[in-house]
Amino acid sequence: MDLAELQATIRATYGEADRARGVDATFGWFVEEVGELSRAIRREGHGRQVEEFGDVLAWLVTLADLCDVDITEAARRYGHGCPKCDASPCTCVHG
Amino acid sequence: MDLAELQATIRATYGEADRARGVDATFGWFVEEVGELSRAIRREGHGRQVEEFGDVLAWLVTLADLCDVDITEAARRYGHGCPKCDASPCTCVHG
Repeated sequence: MDLAELQATIRATYGEADRARGVDATFGWFVEEVGELSRAIRREGHGRQVEEFGDVLAWLVTLADLCDVDITEAARRYGHGCPKCDASPCTCVHG
Repeated sequence: MDLAELQATIRATYGEADRARGVDATFGWFVEEVGELSRAIRREGHGRQVEEFGDVLAWLVTLADLCDVDITEAARRYGHGCPKCDASPCTCVHG
């Protein structure tokens, strides 16, 4: 799936409601989905986890669109490895 | 950018460190980036916002990979509109 197409579809689906709701309230919805993802990882099975990862991704993309951020441009930093050390595998220290 | 290619690159870049760190600690890193995204949206400019959306997306994809979730399968629910009402624009009520 192409990220730019996903952003365009999400804009067509939710853009008008997002703009009416605004950035702060949309961030709240996004964080609610992050909580549901946490629960799915800890207590639920693979099917629910797939759904919740999809929900968090969709709210992240809709929030990016509301902030005039191109999620493809955002993803491009990771397109060839780590944006900090430029290596793949990464040679940064992440605890 | 193709989501499956992004997941494969992120797995090659971070997969070994992710598996050593585990799901719980990786979720912690993901949430830290969500906090940084909040700050970027509230207080910083477009360039920082692009970076932070990229960081949150990358940690979401790396977490999905650690949970054996195909982020493309997860995104597919939103590929043609709202997964609840099947419409685009969405006709669900989201506050």
